[in-house]
Amino acid sequence: MEKVNLREKFALFDEYWSPKLVGELSGQSVKIAKLKGEFIWHHHEAEEELFMVIKGRLTIKLPEEDVVLEEGEFFIVPRGVEHKPVAEEEAHILMFEPKSTLNTGNVRSERTVETLETL
Amino acid sequence: MEKVNLREKFALFDEYWSPKLVGELSGQSVKIAKLKGEFIWHHHEAEEELFMVIKGRLTIKLPEEDVVLEEGEFFIVPRGVEHKPVAEEEAHILMFEPKSTLNTGNVRSERTVETLETL
Repeated sequence: MEKVNLREKFALFDEYWSPKLVGELSGQSVKIAKLKGEFIWHHHEAEEELFMVIKGRLTIKLPEEDVVLEEGEFFIVPRGVEHKPVAEEEAHILMFEPKSTLNTGNVRSERTVETLETL
Repeated sequence: MEKVNLREKFALFDEYWSPKLVGELSGQSVKIAKLKGEFIWHHHEAEEELFMVIKGRLTIKLPEEDVVLEEGEFFIVPRGVEHKPVAEEEAHILMFEPKSTLNTGNVRSERTVETLETL
């Protein structure tokens, strides 16, 4: 049985906005991603999504406020709530959410990642 | 909607081996705990349990090996697998598991925490 070292996993890829699967338990997935720039507005009909910042800073824009996450902070986006992640500088994040959760939620675009790579 | 700062949450309590609830999503809970010393051998019949080290070092003893987790590392204990967490020095950990998961699993002892405090 293998432990997961986040630093080692982050060293394995460079793409932004392409979540990688690093763990699964009880129907939920642990995913990591590197983010830089602005993502798109979207929501998830049925799924809640936890974002934790491992390195850098992530702003999660919501309809009525911005949530700014620093290292060691997390935020849970409730189901159905529109959100738009923005990282001015490269940010490394960890997510907890169902494996089936599409990164772009209700929106299909060139940024949609249909099949996650497992690291 | 509130973000969670792990450092601030850890500053709110001193007890060891007493998990605190800091988030919930999709039937799963995010819990934190301070650990020091040896816990008891136990398993969880139906639940998988993720341990991530935020500060310090945690050894998860398994029947046939020890998994040593440093900061930024996590391990998922499969359901039914006996395990015993040990922290020689104070360790701060984050757990991801169902809210209903009892800290001592199949064992009831003086270390069982029936009702989690929410921070």
